Amino acid sequence: MEWKQQLNDYIKLINNELERYISLKHYKNRTLIQAMEYSLTAGGKRLRPILAIASYELFNSNVERVLPYACGIEMIHTYSLIHDDLPAMDNDDYRRGKLTNHKVFGEGVAILAGDGLLNYAFEIMLQDAVKHNDMRRYVESIKSIAEGAGINGMIGGQIVDIESEGKTIDKETLEYIHLCKTAALITVSLKIGAIIANADEKDIKNMETIGENLGLAFQIRDDILDIIGENEKMGKNVGSDIKSKKSTYPSLYGLDYSINKVKELALNTNDILKQYNKSSFLFELNNYLINREY
Amino acid sequence: MEWKQQLNDYIKLINNELERYISLKHYKNRTLIQAMEYSLTAGGKRLRPILAIASYELFNSNVERVLPYACGIEMIHTYSLIHDDLPAMDNDDYRRGKLTNHKVFGEGVAILAGDGLLNYAFEIMLQDAVKHNDMRRYVESIKSIAEGAGINGMIGGQIVDIESEGKTIDKETLEYIHLCKTAALITVSLKIGAIIANADEKDIKNMETIGENLGLAFQIRDDILDIIGENEKMGKNVGSDIKSKKSTYPSLYGLDYSINKVKELALNTNDILKQYNKSSFLFELNNYLINREY
Repeated sequence: MEWKQQLNDYIKLINNELERYISLKHYKNRTLIQAMEYSLTAGGKRLRPILAIASYELFNSNVERVLPYACGIEMIHTYSLIHDDLPAMDNDDYRRGKLTNHKVFGEGVAILAGDGLLNYAFEIMLQDAVKHNDMRRYVESIKSIAEGAGINGMIGGQIVDIESEGKTIDKETLEYIHLCKTAALITVSLKIGAIIANADEKDIKNMETIGENLGLAFQIRDDILDIIGENEKMGKNVGSDIKSKKSTYPSLYGLDYSINKVKELALNTNDILKQYNKSSFLFELNNYLINREY
Repeated sequence: MEWKQQLNDYIKLINNELERYISLKHYKNRTLIQAMEYSLTAGGKRLRPILAIASYELFNSNVERVLPYACGIEMIHTYSLIHDDLPAMDNDDYRRGKLTNHKVFGEGVAILAGDGLLNYAFEIMLQDAVKHNDMRRYVESIKSIAEGAGINGMIGGQIVDIESEGKTIDKETLEYIHLCKTAALITVSLKIGAIIANADEKDIKNMETIGENLGLAFQIRDDILDIIGENEKMGKNVGSDIKSKKSTYPSLYGLDYSINKVKELALNTNDILKQYNKSSFLFELNNYLINREY
Protein backbone atom coordinates (compact mmCIF):
# COMPACT_ATOMS: atom_id res chain seq x y z
CA MET A 1 0.00 0.00 0.00
CA GLU A 2 1.10 3.55 -0.73
CA TRP A 3 2.24 5.00 2.58
CA LYS A 4 0.01 8.07 2.17
CA GLN A 5 -2.96 5.75 1.81
CA GLN A 6 -1.88 4.00 4.99
CA LEU A 7 -1.55 7.39 6.69
CA ASN A 8 -5.09 8.35 5.68
CA ASP A 9 -6.42 4.99 6.84
CA TYR A 10 -4.77 5.47 10.23
CA ILE A 11 -6.21 8.98 10.54
CA LYS A 12 -9.68 7.74 9.64
CA LEU A 13 -9.43 4.93 12.16
CA ILE A 14 -8.30 7.31 14.91
CA ASN A 15 -10.88 9.98 14.11
CA ASN A 16 -13.69 7.41 14.17
CA GLU A 17 -12.51 6.09 17.49
CA LEU A 18 -12.14 9.55 19.03
CA GLU A 19 -15.60 10.47 17.72
CA ARG A 20 -17.00 7.37 19.40
CA TYR A 21 -15.33 8.20 22.72
CA ILE A 22 -16.51 11.81 22.71
CA SER A 23 -20.09 11.13 21.54
CA LEU A 24 -21.14 11.04 25.13
CA LYS A 25 -24.51 11.07 26.70
CA HIS A 26 -24.57 14.38 28.43
CA TYR A 27 -26.90 15.65 31.05
CA LYS A 28 -26.18 18.98 32.68
CA ASN A 29 -22.53 18.95 31.62
CA ARG A 30 -23.25 19.60 27.93
CA THR A 31 -21.02 22.64 27.55
CA LEU A 32 -18.06 20.68 28.89
CA ILE A 33 -18.50 17.85 26.40
CA GLN A 34 -18.97 20.33 23.54
CA ALA A 35 -15.79 22.20 24.44
CA MET A 36 -13.82 18.94 24.69
CA GLU A 37 -15.20 17.76 21.37
CA TYR A 38 -14.45 21.10 19.69
CA SER A 39 -10.72 20.82 20.29
CA LEU A 40 -10.51 17.07 19.88
CA THR A 41 -12.00 17.31 16.38
CA ALA A 42 -10.26 20.54 15.33
CA GLY A 43 -8.09 18.93 12.68
CA GLY A 44 -5.09 17.61 14.56
CA LYS A 45 -2.44 15.72 12.59
CA ARG A 46 -2.90 12.68 14.92
CA LEU A 47 0.85 12.16 14.87
CA ARG A 48 1.07 10.57 18.32
CA PRO A 49 -1.70 7.97 17.91
CA ILE A 50 -0.41 7.16 14.41
CA LEU A 51 3.02 6.47 15.89
CA ALA A 52 1.50 4.29 18.61
CA ILE A 53 -0.41 2.19 16.08
CA ALA A 54 2.48 1.99 13.60
CA SER A 55 4.83 0.87 16.37
CA TYR A 56 2.29 -1.76 17.47
CA GLU A 57 2.00 -3.06 13.91
CA LEU A 58 5.73 -3.71 13.70
CA PHE A 59 5.22 -6.48 16.25
CA ASN A 60 1.61 -7.62 16.25
CA SER A 61 -1.78 -7.58 14.57
CA ASN A 62 -5.26 -6.83 16.03
CA VAL A 63 -4.75 -3.13 16.05
CA GLU A 64 -7.85 -2.49 18.19
CA ARG A 65 -5.85 -3.51 21.26
CA VAL A 66 -3.77 -0.36 21.07
CA LEU A 67 -6.54 2.06 20.05
CA PRO A 68 -7.77 3.16 23.50
CA TYR A 69 -4.19 4.06 24.44
CA ALA A 70 -3.51 5.82 21.13
CA CYS A 71 -6.70 7.85 21.67
CA GLY A 72 -5.81 8.53 25.31
CA ILE A 73 -2.49 10.02 24.20
CA GLU A 74 -4.25 12.22 21.63
CA MET A 75 -6.62 13.49 24.34
CA ILE A 76 -3.65 14.34 26.56
CA HIS A 77 -1.95 16.13 23.67
CA THR A 78 -5.17 18.06 22.96
CA TYR A 79 -5.65 19.13 26.59
CA SER A 80 -2.08 20.45 26.65
CA LEU A 81 -2.80 22.60 23.57
CA ILE A 82 -5.99 24.03 25.11
CA HIS A 83 -4.16 25.05 28.28
CA ASP A 84 -1.12 26.23 26.33
CA ASP A 85 -3.26 28.60 24.26
CA LEU A 86 -4.80 30.33 27.31
CA PRO A 87 -4.15 34.05 27.88
CA ALA A 88 -2.09 33.22 31.00
CA MET A 89 0.16 31.01 28.87
CA ASP A 90 0.82 31.61 25.13
CA ASN A 91 -2.33 33.71 24.59
CA ASP A 92 -3.12 32.40 21.12
CA ASP A 93 -6.38 33.19 19.33
CA TYR A 94 -5.97 30.64 16.56
CA ARG A 95 -4.74 27.08 16.24
CA ARG A 96 -4.82 25.05 13.05
CA GLY A 97 -6.67 27.96 11.47
CA LYS A 98 -9.56 27.76 13.95
CA LEU A 99 -10.35 29.86 17.01
CA THR A 100 -8.75 28.47 20.15
CA ASN A 101 -10.96 26.85 22.78
CA HIS A 102 -11.11 29.81 25.17
CA LYS A 103 -11.96 32.20 22.31
CA VAL A 104 -15.07 30.12 21.63
CA PHE A 105 -16.09 28.92 25.11
CA GLY A 106 -14.40 31.36 27.48
CA GLU A 107 -11.44 30.79 29.77
CA GLY A 108 -13.22 29.01 32.61
CA VAL A 109 -14.76 26.41 30.32
CA ALA A 110 -11.47 26.00 28.42
CA ILE A 111 -9.59 25.24 31.64
CA LEU A 112 -12.20 22.63 32.57
CA ALA A 113 -12.29 21.19 29.04
CA GLY A 114 -8.52 20.65 29.33
CA ASP A 115 -8.90 19.07 32.77
CA GLY A 116 -11.74 16.97 31.39
CA LEU A 117 -9.67 15.63 28.49
CA LEU A 118 -6.69 14.75 30.69
CA ASN A 119 -8.92 12.96 33.16
CA TYR A 120 -11.02 11.28 30.45
CA ALA A 121 -7.85 9.92 28.81
CA PHE A 122 -7.13 7.98 32.00
CA GLU A 123 -10.77 6.90 32.28
CA ILE A 124 -10.91 5.31 28.84
CA MET A 125 -7.50 3.66 29.20
CA LEU A 126 -8.32 2.24 32.65
CA GLN A 127 -11.76 1.10 31.52
CA ASP A 128 -10.04 -0.84 28.75
CA ALA A 129 -7.27 -2.22 30.96
CA VAL A 130 -9.65 -3.85 33.46
CA LYS A 131 -11.30 -5.78 30.62
CA HIS A 132 -8.13 -7.86 30.14
CA ASN A 133 -7.51 -10.87 32.36
CA ASP A 134 -3.80 -10.37 32.04
CA MET A 135 -3.74 -6.60 32.36
CA ARG A 136 -0.07 -6.01 33.18
CA ARG A 137 1.13 -4.68 29.85
CA TYR A 138 -1.87 -2.38 29.55
CA VAL A 139 -1.34 -0.95 33.03
CA GLU A 140 2.41 -0.60 32.43
CA SER A 141 1.50 1.38 29.30
CA ILE A 142 -0.85 3.74 31.16
CA LYS A 143 1.90 4.26 33.75
CA SER A 144 4.39 5.15 31.00
CA ILE A 145 1.90 7.55 29.44
CA ALA A 146 1.31 9.24 32.81
CA GLU A 147 5.07 9.62 33.27
CA GLY A 148 5.59 10.99 29.75
CA ALA A 149 2.75 13.49 30.20
CA GLY A 150 3.78 14.46 33.71
CA ILE A 151 5.97 16.80 35.73
CA ASN A 152 9.18 15.22 34.44
CA GLY A 153 7.77 15.01 30.94
CA MET A 154 5.35 17.22 29.05
CA ILE A 155 4.18 19.43 31.94
CA GLY A 156 7.80 19.87 33.06
CA GLY A 157 8.62 21.12 29.57
CA GLN A 158 5.64 23.47 29.65
CA ILE A 159 6.65 25.19 32.87
CA VAL A 160 10.19 25.82 31.65
CA ASP A 161 8.78 27.04 28.35
CA ILE A 162 6.55 29.67 29.93
CA GLU A 163 9.29 30.70 32.35
CA SER A 164 11.63 31.21 29.39
CA GLU A 165 9.29 33.53 27.54
CA GLY A 166 10.90 36.77 26.40
CA LYS A 167 14.27 35.59 27.73
CA THR A 168 17.34 34.29 25.96
CA ILE A 169 17.88 30.79 27.27
CA ASP A 170 20.89 28.51 27.13
CA LYS A 171 21.16 25.38 25.01
CA GLU A 172 20.64 23.06 27.96
CA THR A 173 17.33 24.72 28.79
CA LEU A 174 16.16 24.58 25.18
CA GLU A 175 17.07 20.89 25.08
CA TYR A 176 15.02 20.31 28.25
CA ILE A 177 11.99 22.11 26.78
CA HIS A 178 12.14 20.23 23.46
CA LEU A 179 12.75 16.82 25.01
CA CYS A 180 10.04 17.23 27.65
CA LYS A 181 7.38 19.36 26.02
CA THR A 182 7.32 17.61 22.65
CA ALA A 183 9.49 14.50 22.55
CA ALA A 184 8.28 12.88 25.79
CA LEU A 185 4.75 12.19 24.54
CA ILE A 186 5.97 11.18 21.07
CA THR A 187 8.47 8.80 22.69
CA VAL A 188 5.84 7.22 24.90
CA SER A 189 3.53 6.76 21.90
CA LEU A 190 6.09 4.58 20.14
CA LYS A 191 6.99 2.85 23.40
CA ILE A 192 3.48 1.78 24.42
CA GLY A 193 2.77 0.53 20.90
CA ALA A 194 5.59 -1.95 21.43
CA ILE A 195 4.60 -2.77 25.03
CA ILE A 196 0.98 -3.55 24.12
CA ALA A 197 2.18 -5.61 21.14
CA ASN A 198 4.18 -7.71 23.64
CA ALA A 199 7.49 -6.82 22.01
CA ASP A 200 10.88 -7.68 23.57
CA GLU A 201 12.69 -5.37 25.98
CA LYS A 202 15.23 -4.54 23.24
CA ASP A 203 12.52 -3.63 20.74
CA ILE A 204 10.73 -1.45 23.28
CA LYS A 205 14.01 0.36 23.89
CA ASN A 206 14.48 0.83 20.12
CA MET A 207 11.04 2.39 19.82
CA GLU A 208 11.93 4.78 22.66
CA THR A 209 15.12 5.82 20.89
CA ILE A 210 13.23 6.44 17.67
CA GLY A 211 10.73 8.51 19.64
CA GLU A 212 13.42 10.74 21.11
CA ASN A 213 15.05 11.30 17.72
CA LEU A 214 11.79 11.89 15.97
CA GLY A 215 10.38 14.11 18.71
CA LEU A 216 13.44 16.33 18.71
CA ALA A 217 13.61 16.44 14.90
CA PHE A 218 9.91 17.29 14.74
CA GLN A 219 10.31 20.20 17.17
CA ILE A 220 13.42 21.59 15.46
CA ARG A 221 11.60 21.37 12.13
CA ASP A 222 8.75 23.34 13.74
CA ASP A 223 11.22 26.03 14.82
CA ILE A 224 12.72 26.11 11.32
CA LEU A 225 9.28 26.43 9.74
CA ASP A 226 8.51 29.38 12.00
CA ILE A 227 11.29 31.16 10.11
CA ILE A 228 10.90 29.86 6.57
CA GLY A 229 7.30 28.60 6.44
CA GLU A 230 4.24 30.13 4.86
CA ASN A 231 1.45 31.59 6.99
CA GLU A 232 -1.37 29.92 5.22
CA LYS A 233 -0.06 26.38 5.35
CA MET A 234 0.93 26.63 9.02
CA GLY A 235 -2.52 27.85 10.16
CA LYS A 236 -0.78 30.20 12.57
CA ASN A 237 1.33 33.30 12.27
CA VAL A 238 4.78 32.56 10.95
CA GLY A 239 7.55 34.48 12.64
CA SER A 240 5.67 34.45 15.98
CA ASP A 241 8.70 32.98 17.75
CA ILE A 242 10.87 35.83 16.52
CA LYS A 243 8.27 38.44 17.49
CA SER A 244 7.99 36.96 20.99
CA LYS A 245 11.80 36.80 21.18
CA LYS A 246 11.54 33.09 21.84
CA SER A 247 14.80 31.17 21.87
CA THR A 248 14.61 28.37 19.33
CA TYR A 249 17.01 25.86 17.86
CA PRO A 250 17.77 28.07 14.85
CA SER A 251 18.22 31.19 17.01
CA LEU A 252 20.73 29.43 19.29
CA TYR A 253 22.50 27.21 16.73
CA GLY A 254 21.81 28.91 13.41
CA LEU A 255 19.58 27.74 10.56
CA ASP A 256 22.11 25.56 8.72
CA TYR A 257 23.16 23.70 11.84
CA SER A 258 19.47 23.13 12.69
CA ILE A 259 18.69 21.74 9.24
CA ASN A 260 21.66 19.37 9.51
CA LYS A 261 20.66 18.31 13.00
CA VAL A 262 17.22 17.29 11.73
CA LYS A 263 18.86 15.22 8.97
CA GLU A 264 21.19 13.54 11.44
CA LEU A 265 18.32 12.60 13.76
CA ALA A 266 16.32 11.26 10.83
CA LEU A 267 19.24 9.08 9.72
CA ASN A 268 19.55 7.62 13.21
CA THR A 269 15.88 6.73 13.15
CA ASN A 270 16.11 5.12 9.74
CA ASP A 271 19.13 3.08 10.87
CA ILE A 272 17.07 1.54 13.64
CA LEU A 273 14.02 1.02 11.44
CA LYS A 274 16.10 -1.03 8.96
CA GLN A 275 16.06 -3.92 11.45
CA TYR A 276 12.33 -4.36 11.11
CA ASN A 277 10.47 -6.02 8.25
CA LYS A 278 7.31 -4.00 8.32
CA SER A 279 8.88 -0.61 8.93
CA SER A 280 8.32 1.04 5.55
CA PHE A 281 5.44 3.17 6.83
CA LEU A 282 7.46 4.58 9.74
CA PHE A 283 10.41 5.06 7.40
CA GLU A 284 8.32 7.17 5.01
CA LEU A 285 6.60 9.03 7.83
CA ASN A 286 9.95 9.94 9.35
CA ASN A 287 11.22 11.31 6.04
CA TYR A 288 7.97 13.17 5.50
CA LEU A 289 8.00 14.79 8.95
CA ILE A 290 11.49 16.19 8.65
CA ASN A 291 10.81 17.58 5.17
CA ARG A 292 7.28 18.88 5.82
CA GLU A 293 6.49 22.48 5.04
CA TYR A 294 3.68 22.98 7.56
CA MET B 1 -8.42 5.41 71.36
CA GLU B 2 -10.12 8.81 71.51
CA TRP B 3 -11.47 9.46 68.01
CA LYS B 4 -9.79 12.89 67.88
CA GLN B 5 -6.48 11.21 68.59
CA GLN B 6 -7.19 8.79 65.75
CA LEU B 7 -8.06 11.73 63.51
CA ASN B 8 -4.76 13.43 64.27
CA ASP B 9 -2.86 10.20 63.70
CA TYR B 10 -4.51 9.81 60.30
CA ILE B 11 -3.70 13.41 59.37
CA LYS B 12 -0.07 12.96 60.42
CA LEU B 13 0.21 9.76 58.41
CA ILE B 14 -1.28 11.40 55.32
CA ASN B 15 0.80 14.56 55.63
CA ASN B 16 4.01 12.55 55.96
CA GLU B 17 3.13 10.49 52.93
CA LEU B 18 2.19 13.53 50.82
CA GLU B 19 5.41 15.25 51.91
CA ARG B 20 7.35 12.19 50.76
CA TYR B 21 5.61 12.14 47.39
CA ILE B 22 6.14 15.84 46.75
CA SER B 23 9.78 16.01 47.94
CA LEU B 24 10.89 15.49 44.42
CA LYS B 25 14.23 15.83 42.83
CA HIS B 26 13.75 18.75 40.55
CA TYR B 27 15.85 19.95 37.72
CA LYS B 28 14.60 22.78 35.55
CA ASN B 29 10.99 22.30 36.65
CA ARG B 30 11.54 23.68 40.17
CA THR B 31 8.81 26.32 40.05
CA LEU B 32 6.26 23.69 39.11
CA ILE B 33 7.16 21.44 42.04
CA GLN B 34 7.15 24.41 44.43
CA ALA B 35 3.70 25.51 43.27
CA MET B 36 2.34 21.98 43.60
CA GLU B 37 3.83 21.63 47.07
CA TYR B 38 2.49 25.03 48.16
CA SER B 39 -1.12 24.02 47.67
CA LEU B 40 -0.69 20.41 48.72
CA THR B 41 0.68 21.49 52.12
CA ALA B 42 -1.60 24.50 52.61
CA GLY B 43 -3.51 23.04 55.53
CA GLY B 44 -6.21 20.91 53.95
CA LYS B 45 -8.52 18.95 56.25
CA ARG B 46 -7.52 15.72 54.48
CA LEU B 47 -11.13 14.55 54.66
CA ARG B 48 -11.01 12.38 51.53
CA PRO B 49 -7.84 10.40 52.35
CA ILE B 50 -9.03 10.01 55.94
CA LEU B 51 -12.26 8.48 54.66
CA ALA B 52 -10.36 6.16 52.34
CA ILE B 53 -8.16 4.88 55.16
CA ALA B 54 -11.01 4.62 57.69
CA SER B 55 -13.08 2.67 55.18
CA TYR B 56 -10.13 0.37 54.50
CA GLU B 57 -9.66 -0.25 58.23
CA LEU B 58 -13.23 -1.48 58.61
CA PHE B 59 -12.22 -4.54 56.56
CA ASN B 60 -8.47 -5.02 56.68
CA SER B 61 -5.16 -4.10 58.29
CA ASN B 62 -1.85 -3.02 56.67
CA VAL B 63 -2.98 0.48 56.04
CA GLU B 64 0.01 1.27 53.77
CA ARG B 65 -1.74 -0.60 50.96
CA VAL B 66 -4.34 2.14 50.63
CA LEU B 67 -2.03 5.14 51.18
CA PRO B 68 -0.95 5.83 47.57
CA TYR B 69 -4.62 5.92 46.54
CA ALA B 70 -5.64 8.08 49.51
CA CYS B 71 -2.83 10.51 48.58
CA GLY B 72 -3.77 10.39 44.91
CA ILE B 73 -7.32 11.46 45.78
CA GLU B 74 -6.00 14.34 47.92
CA MET B 75 -3.85 15.51 44.99
CA ILE B 76 -6.88 15.45 42.71
CA HIS B 77 -8.91 17.39 45.28
CA THR B 78 -6.07 19.94 45.59
CA TYR B 79 -5.74 20.45 41.83
CA SER B 80 -9.47 21.09 41.60
CA LEU B 81 -9.18 23.83 44.24
CA ILE B 82 -6.25 25.51 42.43
CA HIS B 83 -8.18 25.65 39.17
CA ASP B 84 -11.42 26.59 40.95
CA ASP B 85 -9.75 29.62 42.54
CA LEU B 86 -8.47 31.04 39.22
CA PRO B 87 -9.74 34.43 38.02
CA ALA B 88 -11.58 32.75 35.13
CA MET B 89 -13.44 30.58 37.65
CA ASP B 90 -14.25 31.68 41.24
CA ASN B 91 -11.53 34.35 41.35
CA ASP B 92 -10.58 33.80 44.99
CA ASP B 93 -7.54 35.44 46.59
CA TYR B 94 -7.56 33.35 49.74
CA ARG B 95 -8.16 29.76 50.67
CA ARG B 96 -7.79 28.33 54.16
CA GLY B 97 -6.48 31.74 55.22
CA LYS B 98 -3.57 31.62 52.76
CA LEU B 99 -3.09 33.28 49.38
CA THR B 100 -4.37 31.13 46.54
CA ASN B 101 -1.89 29.47 44.19
CA HIS B 102 -2.21 31.97 41.33
CA LYS B 103 -1.82 34.92 43.73
CA VAL B 104 1.59 33.55 44.71
CA PHE B 105 2.84 31.98 41.47
CA GLY B 106 0.80 33.66 38.74
CA GLU B 107 -1.98 32.21 36.63
CA GLY B 108 0.12 30.31 34.10
CA VAL B 109 2.04 28.43 36.78
CA ALA B 110 -1.15 27.79 38.77
CA ILE B 111 -2.83 26.19 35.76
CA LEU B 112 0.21 23.94 35.24
CA ALA B 113 0.50 23.16 38.96
CA GLY B 114 -3.11 21.95 38.84
CA ASP B 115 -2.44 19.90 35.71
CA GLY B 116 0.70 18.57 37.38
CA LEU B 117 -1.15 17.41 40.50
CA LEU B 118 -3.89 15.67 38.53
CA ASN B 119 -1.35 13.89 36.36
CA TYR B 120 0.96 13.09 39.29
CA ALA B 121 -1.95 11.50 41.18
CA PHE B 122 -2.29 8.95 38.38
CA GLU B 123 1.49 8.49 38.23
CA ILE B 124 1.85 7.54 41.91
CA MET B 125 -1.21 5.30 41.87
CA LEU B 126 -0.12 3.47 38.71
CA GLN B 127 3.45 3.15 39.97
CA ASP B 128 2.05 1.45 43.05
CA ALA B 129 -0.40 -0.75 41.16
CA VAL B 130 2.25 -2.35 38.94
CA LYS B 131 4.16 -3.46 42.06
CA HIS B 132 1.38 -5.93 42.91
CA ASN B 133 1.32 -9.34 41.26
CA ASP B 134 -2.42 -9.43 41.54
CA MET B 135 -3.12 -5.85 40.58
CA ARG B 136 -6.82 -6.03 39.71
CA ARG B 137 -8.29 -4.39 42.78
CA TYR B 138 -5.74 -1.59 42.64
CA VAL B 139 -6.44 -0.88 38.97
CA GLU B 140 -10.19 -1.07 39.57
CA SER B 141 -9.69 1.53 42.29
CA ILE B 142 -7.76 3.91 40.02
CA LYS B 143 -10.51 3.50 37.42
CA SER B 144 -13.16 4.40 40.02
CA ILE B 145 -11.14 7.42 41.11
CA ALA B 146 -10.80 8.60 37.49
CA GLU B 147 -14.57 8.24 37.04
CA GLY B 148 -15.36 10.08 40.28
CA ALA B 149 -13.00 12.91 39.35
CA GLY B 150 -14.13 13.08 35.74
CA ILE B 151 -16.64 14.62 33.40
CA ASN B 152 -19.56 12.76 34.97
CA GLY B 153 -18.18 13.39 38.45
CA MET B 154 -16.20 16.28 39.90
CA ILE B 155 -15.40 18.13 36.64
CA GLY B 156 -19.03 17.73 35.53
CA GLY B 157 -20.10 19.42 38.76
CA GLN B 158 -17.56 22.20 38.25
CA ILE B 159 -18.80 23.15 34.80
CA VAL B 160 -22.42 23.34 35.93
CA ASP B 161 -21.29 25.32 38.96
CA ILE B 162 -19.51 28.01 36.94
CA GLU B 163 -22.36 28.11 34.41
CA SER B 164 -24.80 28.72 37.27
CA GLU B 165 -22.92 31.69 38.66
CA GLY B 166 -25.07 34.75 39.23
CA LYS B 167 -28.17 32.79 38.21
CA THR B 168 -30.98 31.31 40.22
CA ILE B 169 -30.90 27.58 39.54
CA ASP B 170 -33.47 24.89 40.12
CA LYS B 171 -33.25 22.16 42.73
CA GLU B 172 -32.30 19.51 40.21
CA THR B 173 -29.30 21.53 39.04
CA LEU B 174 -28.19 22.21 42.62
CA GLU B 175 -28.45 18.49 43.37
CA TYR B 176 -26.29 17.75 40.32
CA ILE B 177 -23.64 20.25 41.40
CA HIS B 178 -23.51 18.98 44.98
CA LEU B 179 -23.50 15.29 44.05
CA CYS B 180 -20.86 15.71 41.35
CA LYS B 181 -18.64 18.52 42.55
CA THR B 182 -18.32 17.41 46.17
CA ALA B 183 -19.94 14.04 46.83
CA ALA B 184 -18.40 12.12 43.90
CA LEU B 185 -14.82 12.26 45.19
CA ILE B 186 -15.92 11.66 48.80
CA THR B 187 -17.93 8.66 47.66
CA VAL B 188 -15.04 7.20 45.71
CA SER B 189 -12.73 7.65 48.71
CA LEU B 190 -14.91 5.41 50.84
CA LYS B 191 -15.45 3.01 47.95
CA ILE B 192 -11.80 2.42 47.07
CA GLY B 193 -10.93 1.92 50.75
CA ALA B 194 -13.27 -1.07 50.70
CA ILE B 195 -12.11 -2.31 47.26
CA ILE B 196 -8.43 -2.28 48.25
CA ALA B 197 -9.30 -3.99 51.55
CA ASN B 198 -10.87 -6.77 49.48
CA ALA B 199 -14.32 -6.22 50.98
CA ASP B 200 -17.48 -7.89 49.65
CA GLU B 201 -19.63 -6.35 46.90
CA LYS B 202 -22.30 -5.53 49.50
CA ASP B 203 -19.83 -3.75 51.75
CA ILE B 204 -18.39 -1.76 48.84
CA LYS B 205 -21.95 -0.68 48.00
CA ASN B 206 -22.54 0.33 51.64
CA MET B 207 -19.42 2.49 51.60
CA GLU B 208 -20.65 4.18 48.43
CA THR B 209 -24.01 4.94 50.03
CA ILE B 210 -22.29 6.40 53.08
CA GLY B 211 -20.16 8.52 50.75
CA GLU B 212 -23.17 9.96 48.94
CA ASN B 213 -24.94 10.80 52.22
CA LEU B 214 -21.84 12.24 53.79
CA GLY B 215 -20.79 14.18 50.69
CA LEU B 216 -24.19 15.81 50.35
CA ALA B 217 -24.43 16.52 54.09
CA PHE B 218 -20.94 18.02 54.05
CA GLN B 219 -21.79 20.37 51.17
CA ILE B 220 -25.12 21.46 52.67
CA ARG B 221 -23.34 22.12 55.97
CA ASP B 222 -20.86 24.26 54.01
CA ASP B 223 -23.72 26.26 52.52
CA ILE B 224 -25.26 26.67 55.97
CA LEU B 225 -21.97 27.84 57.43
CA ASP B 226 -21.68 30.45 54.69
CA ILE B 227 -24.73 32.03 56.29
CA ILE B 228 -24.21 31.43 60.01
CA GLY B 229 -20.43 30.83 60.31
CA GLU B 230 -17.69 33.11 61.59
CA ASN B 231 -15.18 34.63 59.17
CA GLU B 232 -12.13 33.79 61.19
CA LYS B 233 -12.84 30.09 61.65
CA MET B 234 -13.79 29.59 58.00
CA GLY B 235 -10.59 31.17 56.63
CA LYS B 236 -12.64 32.74 53.88
CA ASN B 237 -15.26 35.45 53.64
CA VAL B 238 -18.55 34.37 55.14
CA GLY B 239 -21.60 35.46 53.18
CA SER B 240 -19.68 35.19 49.90
CA ASP B 241 -22.38 32.94 48.44
CA ILE B 242 -25.03 35.54 49.19
CA LYS B 243 -22.90 38.34 47.75
CA SER B 244 -22.29 36.38 44.54
CA LYS B 245 -26.04 35.53 44.44
CA LYS B 246 -25.13 31.87 44.41
CA SER B 247 -28.02 29.43 44.73
CA THR B 248 -27.41 27.17 47.71
CA TYR B 249 -29.36 24.57 49.61
CA PRO B 250 -30.52 27.14 52.23
CA SER B 251 -31.46 29.69 49.55
CA LEU B 252 -33.61 27.16 47.67
CA TYR B 253 -35.01 25.15 50.59
CA GLY B 254 -34.69 27.48 53.59
CA LEU B 255 -32.32 27.21 56.55
CA ASP B 256 -34.45 24.98 58.79
CA TYR B 257 -35.11 22.46 56.04
CA SER B 258 -31.40 22.39 55.24
CA ILE B 259 -30.43 21.76 58.85
CA ASN B 260 -32.95 18.91 59.05
CA LYS B 261 -31.71 17.45 55.76
CA VAL B 262 -28.18 17.27 57.13
CA LYS B 263 -29.47 15.46 60.22
CA GLU B 264 -31.44 12.99 58.13
CA LEU B 265 -28.44 12.18 55.95
CA ALA B 266 -26.28 11.72 59.03
CA LEU B 267 -28.79 9.30 60.55
CA ASN B 268 -28.81 7.22 57.37
CA THR B 269 -25.04 7.00 57.52
CA ASN B 270 -25.03 5.98 61.16
CA ASP B 271 -27.63 3.29 60.44
CA ILE B 272 -25.29 1.67 57.93
CA LEU B 273 -22.23 2.06 60.15
CA LYS B 274 -23.99 0.16 62.96
CA GLN B 275 -23.42 -3.08 61.02
CA TYR B 276 -19.66 -2.81 61.36
CA ASN B 277 -17.59 -3.63 64.43
CA LYS B 278 -14.83 -1.13 63.99
CA SER B 279 -16.93 1.80 62.83
CA SER B 280 -16.72 4.07 65.87
CA PHE B 281 -14.24 6.42 64.19
CA LEU B 282 -16.42 6.93 61.11
CA PHE B 283 -19.45 7.31 63.37
CA GLU B 284 -17.78 10.10 65.34
CA LEU B 285 -16.36 11.72 62.21
CA ASN B 286 -19.81 11.78 60.61
CA ASN B 287 -21.35 13.46 63.65
CA TYR B 288 -18.49 15.91 63.81
CA LEU B 289 -18.73 16.89 60.15
CA ILE B 290 -22.41 17.70 60.27
CA ASN B 291 -22.03 19.74 63.44
CA ARG B 292 -18.78 21.50 62.52
CA GLU B 293 -18.64 25.27 62.69
CA TYR B 294 -15.93 25.82 60.10
